[in-house]
This record gives sequence, C-alpha cells and structure tokens, in this order.
Amino acid sequence: MKVLIINGPNLNLLGKREESIYGSMGFDAYLETLKNLYAEDEIIYYQSNHEGDIIDELHKVGFGGVDAIVLNAGAYTHTSIAISDAIRAIKTPVIEVHISNVMARESYRHTSYISASCVGTIAGFGLDSYRLAIEAVKNMIK
Amino acid sequence: MKVLIINGPNLNLLGKREESIYGSMGFDAYLETLKNLYAEDEIIYYQSNHEGDIIDELHKVGFGGVDAIVLNAGAYTHTSIAISDAIRAIKTPVIEVHISNVMARESYRHTSYISASCVGTIAGFGLDSYRLAIEAVKNMIK
Amino acid sequence: MKVLIINGPNLNLLGKREESIYGSMGFDAYLETLKNLYAEDEIIYYQSNHEGDIIDELHKVGFGGVDAIVLNAGAYTHTSIAISDAIRAIKTPVIEVHISNVMARESYRHTSYISASCVGTIAGFGLDSYRLAIEAVKNMIK
Amino acid sequence: MKVLIINGPNLNLLGKREESIYGSMGFDAYLETLKNLYAEDEIIYYQSNHEGDIIDELHKVGFGGVDAIVLNAGAYTHTSIAISDAIRAIKTPVIEVHISNVMARESYRHTSYISASCVGTIAGFGLDSYRLAIEAVKNMIK
Amino acid sequence: MKVLIINGPNLNLLGKREESIYGSMGFDAYLETLKNLYAEDEIIYYQSNHEGDIIDELHKVGFGGVDAIVLNAGAYTHTSIAISDAIRAIKTPVIEVHISNVMARESYRHTSYISASCVGTIAGFGLDSYRLAIEAVKNMIK
Amino acid sequence: MKVLIINGPNLNLLGKREESIYGSMGFDAYLETLKNLYAEDEIIYYQSNHEGDIIDELHKVGFGGVDAIVLNAGAYTHTSIAISDAIRAIKTPVIEVHISNVMARESYRHTSYISASCVGTIAGFGLDSYRLAIEAVKNMIK
Amino acid sequence: MKVLIINGPNLNLLGKREESIYGSMGFDAYLETLKNLYAEDEIIYYQSNHEGDIIDELHKVGFGGVDAIVLNAGAYTHTSIAISDAIRAIKTPVIEVHISNVMARESYRHTSYISASCVGTIAGFGLDSYRLAIEAVKNMIK
Amino acid sequence: MKVLIINGPNLNLLGKREESIYGSMGFDAYLETLKNLYAEDEIIYYQSNHEGDIIDELHKVGFGGVDAIVLNAGAYTHTSIAISDAIRAIKTPVIEVHISNVMARESYRHTSYISASCVGTIAGFGLDSYRLAIEAVKNMIK
Amino acid sequence: MKVLIINGPNLNLLGKREESIYGSMGFDAYLETLKNLYAEDEIIYYQSNHEGDIIDELHKVGFGGVDAIVLNAGAYTHTSIAISDAIRAIKTPVIEVHISNVMARESYRHTSYISASCVGTIAGFGLDSYRLAIEAVKNMIK
Amino acid sequence: MKVLIINGPNLNLLGKREESIYGSMGFDAYLETLKNLYAEDEIIYYQSNHEGDIIDELHKVGFGGVDAIVLNAGAYTHTSIAISDAIRAIKTPVIEVHISNVMARESYRHTSYISASCVGTIAGFGLDSYRLAIEAVKNMIK
Amino acid sequence: MKVLIINGPNLNLLGKREESIYGSMGFDAYLETLKNLYAEDEIIYYQSNHEGDIIDELHKVGFGGVDAIVLNAGAYTHTSIAISDAIRAIKTPVIEVHISNVMARESYRHTSYISASCVGTIAGFGLDSYRLAIEAVKNMIK
Amino acid sequence: MKVLIINGPNLNLLGKREESIYGSMGFDAYLETLKNLYAEDEIIYYQSNHEGDIIDELHKVGFGGVDAIVLNAGAYTHTSIAISDAIRAIKTPVIEVHISNVMARESYRHTSYISASCVGTIAGFGLDSYRLAIEAVKNMIK
Repeated sequence: MKVLIINGPNLNLLGKREESIYGSMGFDAYLETLKNLYAEDEIIYYQSNHEGDIIDELHKVGFGGVDAIVLNAGAYTHTSIAISDAIRAIKTPVIEVHISNVMARESYRHTSYISASCVGTIAGFGLDSYRLAIEAVKNMIK
Repeated sequence: MKVLIINGPNLNLLGKREESIYGSMGFDAYLETLKNLYAEDEIIYYQSNHEGDIIDELHKVGFGGVDAIVLNAGAYTHTSIAISDAIRAIKTPVIEVHISNVMARESYRHTSYISASCVGTIAGFGLDSYRLAIEAVKNMIK
Repeated sequence: MKVLIINGPNLNLLGKREESIYGSMGFDAYLETLKNLYAEDEIIYYQSNHEGDIIDELHKVGFGGVDAIVLNAGAYTHTSIAISDAIRAIKTPVIEVHISNVMARESYRHTSYISASCVGTIAGFGLDSYRLAIEAVKNMIK
Repeated sequence: MKVLIINGPNLNLLGKREESIYGSMGFDAYLETLKNLYAEDEIIYYQSNHEGDIIDELHKVGFGGVDAIVLNAGAYTHTSIAISDAIRAIKTPVIEVHISNVMARESYRHTSYISASCVGTIAGFGLDSYRLAIEAVKNMIK
Repeated sequence: MKVLIINGPNLNLLGKREESIYGSMGFDAYLETLKNLYAEDEIIYYQSNHEGDIIDELHKVGFGGVDAIVLNAGAYTHTSIAISDAIRAIKTPVIEVHISNVMARESYRHTSYISASCVGTIAGFGLDSYRLAIEAVKNMIK
Repeated sequence: MKVLIINGPNLNLLGKREESIYGSMGFDAYLETLKNLYAEDEIIYYQSNHEGDIIDELHKVGFGGVDAIVLNAGAYTHTSIAISDAIRAIKTPVIEVHISNVMARESYRHTSYISASCVGTIAGFGLDSYRLAIEAVKNMIK
Repeated sequence: MKVLIINGPNLNLLGKREESIYGSMGFDAYLETLKNLYAEDEIIYYQSNHEGDIIDELHKVGFGGVDAIVLNAGAYTHTSIAISDAIRAIKTPVIEVHISNVMARESYRHTSYISASCVGTIAGFGLDSYRLAIEAVKNMIK
Repeated sequence: MKVLIINGPNLNLLGKREESIYGSMGFDAYLETLKNLYAEDEIIYYQSNHEGDIIDELHKVGFGGVDAIVLNAGAYTHTSIAISDAIRAIKTPVIEVHISNVMARESYRHTSYISASCVGTIAGFGLDSYRLAIEAVKNMIK
Repeated sequence: MKVLIINGPNLNLLGKREESIYGSMGFDAYLETLKNLYAEDEIIYYQSNHEGDIIDELHKVGFGGVDAIVLNAGAYTHTSIAISDAIRAIKTPVIEVHISNVMARESYRHTSYISASCVGTIAGFGLDSYRLAIEAVKNMIK
Repeated sequence: MKVLIINGPNLNLLGKREESIYGSMGFDAYLETLKNLYAEDEIIYYQSNHEGDIIDELHKVGFGGVDAIVLNAGAYTHTSIAISDAIRAIKTPVIEVHISNVMARESYRHTSYISASCVGTIAGFGLDSYRLAIEAVKNMIK
Repeated sequence: MKVLIINGPNLNLLGKREESIYGSMGFDAYLETLKNLYAEDEIIYYQSNHEGDIIDELHKVGFGGVDAIVLNAGAYTHTSIAISDAIRAIKTPVIEVHISNVMARESYRHTSYISASCVGTIAGFGLDSYRLAIEAVKNMIK
Repeated sequence: MKVLIINGPNLNLLGKREESIYGSMGFDAYLETLKNLYAEDEIIYYQSNHEGDIIDELHKVGFGGVDAIVLNAGAYTHTSIAISDAIRAIKTPVIEVHISNVMARESYRHTSYISASCVGTIAGFGLDSYRLAIEAVKNMIK
C-alpha cells in the first residue's frame, strides 16, 4: 500500500506553533513513528504553504501514483474551492484530517469546502488523526 | 479497556434503511465483528430513538463506568444542545462518529452541536468509522 | 385499507387547548366520526408527546403494518430531523397534516423538516385535514 | 355548490411539461374526470400565465360569484404579494393546491406568499390535490 | 399642470377591501373630490392589476405626456424591479404614495424597489396621501 | 392649529452641510417662509443633536401641548428605539419627514425605527417635505 | 400556595457538572433549603432529561394541580417549540428560570422558545433564581 | 444596604404610557411602596432619557457609592453598547430588570447588549420585577 | 436556422433609456444589422413588458417553432420564477443575454432565476451580446 | 489581433476531469481548433493552478502585451479578490468565460468576484465559450 | 498646528477600567506626555459620555477651529450614524483611533459607522494610537 | 531596529494602478524616502502576489529575523485565513497597514481575517500608513 500525506499551510511549523492547540511534536518526528508502525507500507509526505502546490501535487499522484491521499489542508480547508475541485477531478480517494477539533474553534473554521469532496473526515485526535486515516485507508483497499 | 457505543435515532434500522447511504449490513452483525476484532476489550452497546434516553445513558456511565464512549447521535447531532450539554457535564471522553459523510449531504446536516463537546470526530467511512473510533480510544488511554 | 393516525405533542389537549386556533372538539370524539365515515376501513390511532415514541411507532408499522400513516407531528414538525429521517427510513407512505394554517402563524412554524420526507401535506382545514388525508390515501392505494 | 379552479403559469402545459415532476395527464382530461365525479356541482375553470389576469379573475368572482376558489398559483406562489393581497381583498374562501410536493424541491419554492391568505393548503398528491380541495370545500360549506 | 395618477393591483377594490386598513371610500369618489380641489389642473387616472400595463403606461406618458406621475404601485412596490427600471427609463418625475403606513405592516412590505427611483415618498395618510403628492408636484414645477 | 417641528442631529447645519444632498438653504430661513405661509397657525421649532433631548421634548408637548409634531429625527431614525417608544408613549400624532430620499442612499438608512410609530412618512422633497407635513396635519385635524 | 419546580436535562447533575458555571451545590440540598424557607407553602419537584416527560408533566398539573410552575428547561429552552406550545396550552402560569446568565454564554443560548410563553424570566442568580421565582409567584397570586 | 434604581428612557411616563403593556401605576407611587417594604435599607432613584446621563450616573456610583444597581435601561437595552461598556467598567454589580416580558414583544427587543454585562436579568413581572431585583441583591451581599 | 429573440421589460426603450448604461442605438436599428449579418438565417423578434406575455411566447414557439431562443428578460431575470419554469417546461434551448454587465450593478441584479434554466449566459457586451448568442446557437445546432 | 487565454486551477485536467460536467476534449486539442479558426490572429495560452501566477501573468501582459485577455479563473472566480483587483489594476480588457453553466451548479459557485471587474461574461457553452469570447474581442477592437 | 482630541463614552475611566484591555494609565497623565512631545503644537482635549455632546463639539470646531480632530468614539463607533453624519457635515478632517485592537474583540465591535467618514483609522497600539494620529495629522497638513 | 515590510498582491503596481485610489507614487520611490527618514534603522522589503510566498516569508523571519513586520496583505486581507494563521504561528509582532481607507470601499473589503492576529491596524493615510507603522514599532520596542 502506498499513501501520500499532504500537509497544507503552517503545518511545517508543528512543534513550534501555538503548542496549546497543536502540541509540541514536530511532524518529521511523528512521520518516523508512523513509518515504523506501517513498515510494510510506503508512506510518502508533501508539505506546502501554497494552495497551487497542493493542487499540483494532487494532480500528480491522483491518477494512479498512490492508493490514497491523507490531506490536512490547514486553513485552506475553509477557503479553497480550488483544492476541493482538484479532489473531485482526480481518481485517487482522499481522506481529510485535522489535528485539532476544528468545530470547537472559531466559527470560520466550521465551514469546510474540502469535506464534501473527500471520502471522510477525521478531526481532533492530535497527530493520531493521521494514523487513524492510514487505518481507514487500509480498510478501504483491503 | 471498556468502551460503550451509543447509537441514536433510526440507527436500529441499519441494513434495511436507505441502503445507498447507510449500506446493507445491520449493526448487530457489525458489532459481532468488532467484538471479535477487539476480543481483549469490552465493547458494550446501547441504542435508543429517544434524546432523553441518550442523555440518561451518558449520565449513567459518564462518571467512571467506561473508559470512553463512541457516540453516533444520528439526527440529534444537528438539533440537540441537551446531548451536547450532557457530554460536557460528564467526565468520560466521547468520540463522535458518523457512517455517512454528513458534509456531503443536506445543508442542515452540516451543523453539529455535538462536535465541540467531543474529543474528535470520525465521519464518512461507513461502519468502519466505529472501528476507527475504537482505535482512537486505544491510543488515548494507552 | 388500514391507516394509522399519529398525533404529536400537545395534540392530546385538543378541545381544551387554545380553542381559537385548534377548535373545541377533542380528538377522541372526532376519531369516532372518522371511523364511522370509513367503517369499511381500519383506522388506528397513536398519540405521544415524545419525539422518540413517534420514531418508535413509525418503525413498528413502517414495514408492512399499515397501508399509510397520517402524521400530525405538532411542534416537532419544525424541529425534528430525527422524525424526518424515520419517515425516509421506512417503506410505508406518510401524509403530513396540520389542523391550523401553519403558514399564517409564527415564522418559526414556516419551516418543516417533515414535509420533504412525506408524500404530501394538508394544512389549515381544522380536524377535516385528517379526513382529507384519508381521502388522499384511498386514492393512492386504489 | 359552485367552485372555480384557477391555474397559474405553465400549468397549461401539464402533460407535456417535465413529466417526472408533473405527470403525463393534461389538465383538460383531468377536469373531465373531476366534473364527472362531482356531477351535482358546478366546477368552472380558468388558466392564465399572467399575474394580473389571476388577480382580475379573483376580483370578478370574489364577491359572490362562486362558493370557493381552488388556486394553484404555480410559480407566482413564491413571488406574488399582489395575488396574496387579492385573496385577502375578496370575500370568497380560497384553497391553495400544488401538484408536486413543493417543500421537497428547490429552496426558493419553500416560501409561499399565498398560503397565509388562504384557508389551507394541499400539496404533493399529483392531480388528486384538486379533488381533495373540492372535498375540503364541500365540508366547509355544508 | 397635468398629473397622471397610477394605481396598481387591488386598488380598484378600495372601499370594499379590508376597510380597517384602507378605509371605506372608493377611489372614484375620492378622485372627484381631488379634481374639484385642483379644478385648474388636469388630473388623469389609470389603474391596472397588471405589472406590464403599469410599465406600458409609464412609457406612454413618460416622455412629455404629463408633468408628473403619482404612483401607488400597491404590492408591486415590494416585488417589481421592472417598474422601478421603467421609472428610471422615463423622463417624467414620479412620486410614490401609499394609503397605509407600510412600515407598520408585514416585514415584506418594508422593502421598496420603487422608492429609490422616485423623487420621494408619501405614505400613511390614507387617501390624503394623493393630495399631498399633488401638492408636492405643484411645488416642484412652479 | 399649533404644530411643533423637531429636527434631530446635524440638521442645525442645513445650508452648510453636504449641499448636494441637503441643499443650500438654512432651516431658519425656511422656517420664516413656512410661518408666513401658515400665518394663521402657530409653528414652533426645536432642534437638538441629543437623542435624550428629543425624547424630553416629545414628552413635554405630547400630552396636549400641540396639535401635532413634525419630526425629522435625522440619523436617529435608523438607530433609536427610544425615540420610537417615546412617540408611542405620547398622545400627540407625529409625522415623520426627511429632506432627502433616504431609500436612495446607503442601505443602513433604509431601516427606520421611527416610521412604524408615526402616522405617516414624507421623504425626498427637500425642505418642501416639511410643508407637506403641515398640509397633512391640517387635513387630519380639520 | 403550591408550586411545582420542573428541571430539565442535565440539571440532575448539579453539583458535579461544570462547577465554574453551575456551582457546587446539588439541587436536592438546595430544595431542602427552599422548602424550609417557605415552610407554609408546598413546593414539589420534578426532573427529567426527556422533552416528552416535561410536556407530560406540564399537562398533568396545568389545569389546576398547582398554583404556578417554575421551569428551568435547560438546553430545551433553546430548541423546544413543543414545550413552548405546552406552556401555552395549559392554564397554570409558568415562570422561566436559569442558574447561569445565558446571555453571557454561547450565542445559541441567546434564543429562547420558552420565554414568550411564560409570565417572565429570571436568569443569572445561581440557585437563588429559583427562590426569586417563588417570590414572584407569591406576589402574583396574593 | 444601599441600592440605586436607574430607569432609562420613557420610564418617567409609567402610568400614562401604553397601559396595556406597562400598567397604570406611576413609578413614584411604586417607589414609595418599595421603600416601605425595605425600610431598613436605602433605596435611591435616578431616571433619565439620556444615554449619556445613565453612563455618567453608573460612573458616579460605580466605585463604592452603592452596594448594587438595579437597571431598567428601557429601549437602550437593545441599542447601547456604551451603557454595556459602562457596566463592565465599574465595580458595582448591576441587575437588569424589565417590566414587560421583552421576549414576547417585537423581535428587535430580543437583543440585549446589557444582559451579558450584568449579574442577571429579571423580566416580565410588571413593577414587581424591581422588588425581585432587590431580593436578589439582598441574597448576593448577605 | 430560425431563432427568436425575446426582449423583456423596458428594452423597447433602448436608445432613449439611461444611455450611459444601455447605449444610444435603438433595438430596431440593431436588429436590421443582425438580420443582414445572418441573411441566410431567419431571425424573428418579440418584445413585451408583460411577464405573462413572455411565458405565452415561450410556450408558443417552445415545441418546435424555432431552433433556439435568445432571451433578455430584463428585470424579470431577477424576480420571475414563472419565466424560469416556462424555460424548463419547453423543449427549445434558450440562451440568456444581457446588454450591461449585471454583476457590476446593484446587488439585486446579481440574482438570476433565469440562468439555471438556460443553456448559458452572455452578459456585458452591449448589443453585441445578441450576436454572440446567435453565434452560440449556430455552434449548438450545427 | 493578439489574445491571451488564461486558464485557472484544474483546467489542465480538461478531458479527464468530471466529464459529465466538463466534456471529454482536452484543452490542447481545442486550442488547435481555435488557432486554425482564427489563423490570422495570434492566440497565446497560459494555465496555472496558482492564484499568484495568474496575477503575475495578468500584470505581465496587462499594459500593452496583448489586445485582450480571455480568463477562465476556475474556482478562483468565487474566492479571489486578488485576481479581481489585478484585472482592475491593468489596462487590457478581460473577458470572463466558463465552460459549465455555473449558475446551475452549487450555490457557492453563484458568487463571482471576477465578473464585476471584467468587460463581460460568457458561461455555459462548453469549450465554445472560448470561441465566443474571441468573437467578442474581435467586435470590441475592430 | 492645533489638534482636538475627542474621547467618547467610558474613556474618562481609563486607568481604572478593565485594565487588561485598556492599560493602567489615566488619559490625563498621557495627555501631558503628548503635549510635552508636541510642545510646538496646540493639543486640546474634550471628553463626554453623551453622543449629542460629541456631535455638538464636532460642529463647534469643524469649520475652522482646529486643523484636525482625533476621535476615539468608544462604543459609539459601532452604533452612531449621527456622529458619522456629523463628521461628513463638517470641513475639518477627522482621524479615528482605538486603544485596543477592536477586530480582535466581540463581533459587534467589528462594525464601524465612523470609519468610512474619517480620513483613516489607527487601532490597537494602546495609548500610542493617539500619538500616531498626531503624526498622521502632521504629515497631512505639512 | 530591523523591520520587514511585506506587500501583498497588486501592490507591485503602485503608481500605475487605479491612481485615484492608490496615488501616483511607486513603492520603490517611497521606500527610498522611508529609508532616508529612518537611516539609523534597517528597513527591508518583500513583495509577492502569491499567498504562499507571504506565508513562507512570515515563517522565515518570524522567529528572530526582524524586530517587527509591517504587512499590507492587499486583497488577501479579506480572504486568507492561512496568512492569519501564519501571523499567529510566529513570534515576531505584525502590524497591518492599508493605503486606502478600506472601510469606505466595497463591503467585501470590510472583513479582515488579518486584523485579529496583528498588534494593530493603520489604514487610510496613503503611503504615510507605512511610516506610521514604523513609528508604532519604534514605540513598541523602545
């Protein structure tokens, strides 16, 4: 199984950004843990602060490159119809994840353009949200 | 580990209700699979179509009875401040699950009073949403 | 032909509740009239002030118990997505009735979660709304 | 008993207009059936695509010309305060009917300026909605 | 001075329409009074229940036919952008009048598409609103 | 006949304030003209930029001091429920006037708390709006 | 004097529920204090987490059983038109109370379907809100 | 105990203002009753129709002058952020009262800028609302 | 190829109506140019200020009379569900045109009930919008 | 004549993206057709999924580089004020095109920040929308 | 250079009002600092809790009395169209200042009626906002 | 002191873009003036039309690279939650500036996602807004 994790804007700062919300572990360290946990699978990673980059990346792998995509679009979740359209345009299933419980935060974070284009959503479990998404993928493609 | 799954209104009809949305497996059959998968843990189950029953049940187990609650409040998700208050009133962590991707359905299903009171949300993975919630619990209490 | 009439909250008080809006005849007396009028058919009756009871009752008869259901969900018309889901979940057709002309009353009574799940709606004819619903059923199943 | 049925815009196309919503029977054929069914009564008919014509017709018969008016204002239901005012201005009772279940269609069809001025509403029973309205009238004036 | 009074839908029923709101005098009687009061001027009158007729009439006199137009567009006040556009399209000044105090009635009567295209508005003085409009015209063109 | 004209905030600057909207004549000069025109009547005048002063003045004359009040509440029209309540609290009829056509200006000027408490409204005729209000009063109390 | 206090959902958890908002005293203890304070009167108590139960209870005592009802409908305050209708349907006066200052909390708690059906509202005084309601009743029925 | 009662706009007209809503007793007479009832305490009184005066008065006594303030801000309740800020700026606790049940009146009276800054609210009990507020104060400072 | 151009309200005034928005050429002159440009095709023309006339015309040619309809519904674009329904009811494809760029004008012109029923929309190119629509038709039916 | 066509996000996937909405022809193939059709003109092409790239490109050619720009901003149409500002900032006229009829799709596609800054809009004609835009340009600059 | 600083409601309490938001320095002390800093200029000061006083003061100096006005309208910023109109009515330029970052506070503080009438806005720099405004004035009039 | 000025989309066109709004001076020329004015400080500059670039730049200098950031996010002010999150994620204080008075322009420019994450806002003073921001920084870090 090959899965691509895409992280959107400001998620490169995990571990040094608003720690009370996002925790103190950087994503690189977490990624290692995840790769160890799923050693038999291939987990690849992409991060960008650019909406256009995320669309480009979705296009690149979205017609056969990977079995599934785990996407944390960060703030673009609430503003990007373009990313939502990209998810609909490709063939690969996409799973939406969030580290924090977005519904318990500012009201402008309650709107998601992304959710309706994805298979499903996992939010609020800290970094473990990513592992749960991998678990979901494994069940989908078994 | 002891987990209570609470299913809200109309979820007793799973398997014979709008199968294109909810699938053709009844919850009892799924519950057996789940119990087999987590044979070392105790998974108990409660279903009611009554908002008040769900509150009563949350109160009953919410001060030490179980390690966590997995709640699919069904349509009460979108209308019940009382259940949301009950989740805040108890001590046991609650995880929100949905079988379907609620954000891809009618707009009145996009509002959740429940989410902000829960640890997190898992939606859109069919019955596998429940397994993912159990996985989330196992990580939380390990 | 077998028809179940379900009355929701506060309709047990018909005849002694806001008579300028709902009239002075109790529902029991009216039901006798109706049964006499349709003596060759079977008309059964259920009333509850509990949202969950109405869902339970819809489930009980909704897979073959009766030919049609005539539902006055009272105030739950405007707040219950759960009853609306129950109507969609069952196989038996449901007809929505109201005694008063709800569109001529408070604006929060102009929203109906129930209507879109029902075959049709009859509102504003006093208790005669129920007879008209029986008439509609007779035409549907003939 | 003398009843006037008024049909608004596009209802002259019944039978050849969006048949999945409105059915395949033309209104003329249905009107014959209805007249046969209520042979002892006088049922007259008026159709126009003009808002002003409908108002003129309401004025013409609204002070004694008929016992009741059955009005399907079509799309003017959702936009015409002028027709609503005409109904209030006259003395004859008016019953609102719709062929389709308008509450299950586009959201701009959920608003009715007509309903609050009428005695009551019957919607969603196909052409049978008109017969039910006649039934309602018979009960009102007996 | 030559002034055209245009009355919109249902105003032909003045005197026999909702008398508590609109009073018991018919417009014809009032018009006589008005003509007597302004015997030296020419006051002409047009009424229609048709939106299109009102537009046609505005076009007909709007390029020199009269010195000013006094318009009570009735319910079209709140729904007709077409009449508003017609007022802007012509050269003759138009004064908006209402018999009742529309701002003290239903909220859907608080919106006027007409006002912004007119010179000014006079509302709430019963039939005397028309005389005040004539007074306003006399001051404008003196 | 004794009439009080009350002018609200910024109307003391008439003649030197945004002349394209309000004209170049000061109110004092206009008042002289008005007094001359209605020499047989008593026209008194009050202006204040203070919401509370306007309420105090309404109270002072509102139980018999004058036959009617002509009120241009200026910007308080759109924000003052307190002045609206004062008008309802007193016995003397109040007529609302505006110099400019408020409905053709910023959208926040389209809301009037004052209108529904007054007899009627005259807006858009420049300073002549005040004369028309006096005319309206003369008709009301004759 | 005989008064029924009805507490709605989650109020059975008073004293162990979000103490910073609701305080640390259980309602049973408080009830004793209250009964001692009004020893000459009869204060009875009912609590349920079920919307339907509250309606049933209002019906049971609402036609002569008690002199007044003190109702803290908890979260149902903001969602239950059915309870609001029940209050209007009965004859006994109902007083709305809240422990916390609901207007200083989440915006969805600012809407009350209950208030307009009650005599009045007392909110924000902690448990003392109930005593103040008893005081209000004593004044009403003296 | 020393309490200041502040009454806002139009409350000086109590007894001669819209008696069906506000009753027929003037506030001075009621104040005497209240002072007699709480003869051991000092109850002082201030009324103004000026928003600024109410702020000035709150400032004057808000840092030690009295034990509590009972405020009926009248229509300023719904429009004055400045009074709300003044309540937050001072140290003395403020209790909001209303004579009528504001939630049963016009929708623009359902918004209160004042409530969230006060300890609590008492509304709908006629003049007795003031006595209940005094009772609330006595409990708070005992 | 046979095409019907329908122009709605006020478009008969082109060339003498608000020239800064609509230009100075009358439609008759333009129509000649258009007919010359497409001499091999048949271009017919209909204009009315009546909503009902436009519906009647759509019905008349909508079942085979012409190959396509080019419709500039003028202000009815923003208010007429009845015309929108007529377009859906007929078989002939309809293309929406506007002379001005409606999205750059008043916000009430940003809503179109017509667009969703048409093949497509062309707006903002002055009278050339009609030629572009003819071009679109030629491509559709070739 | 030199025209630049700019395609925004996901339009690089034309031909393999949601074919029921966007058709099965890739844009490159279409572009060849278009170039052949307008062989005497120069048609150049730019596509990017990046909002910033589109702005950069508009700046690059917007002061004399080309005669006109045909812009399909894709999903950025509904979210990008920055692109709208760029269009206003440059001198070259811009024409908005859409392949699908956006007004017949999701409601969040009904808002366009782009339209008001452009000359005009062409939407719903499939790829032919681009040819129509070229036609519009030819007329504008002839 | 002569500048008038006007402070609105509750700003007289600076230094003893919600110190976490507004700081602990009183305005008088700050004013001394400011005067020392700009010793060559004349800085005068006015404070009132009365909306009408602020309007009166703006009128008094607004036609030549000072070179510029620095206005912190406090809570009237969000509610006073009358002050906004006063700023437009006078000739002297006005600069809006706020001590706190109003956009980071309650949503009802995000609306400013004042801003659009002023030259510009400076908010969030504590008392230094006033100095920055003086700096802005110096640049404007140099 | 070292300050980074970041300019967002379309600000590279200053001097040749809508000069009535933004003035005729290019930013490079202004920057020279500013550097001369603050010769003892280091002022560096970054401009991009890409949302992602602005986020990258904020991250690069946001953990010690400069003392403060002066940000004119242009149109992204109104649409970018991602930039707002970036400001919150970094440690360096950010000051929001605008050349024009955004509150006096289109309503979609009245919403700022940026403001609440910044120290404060300066808007409407033309290019001098940048100097005022530097002044604000100097006061903050002295």
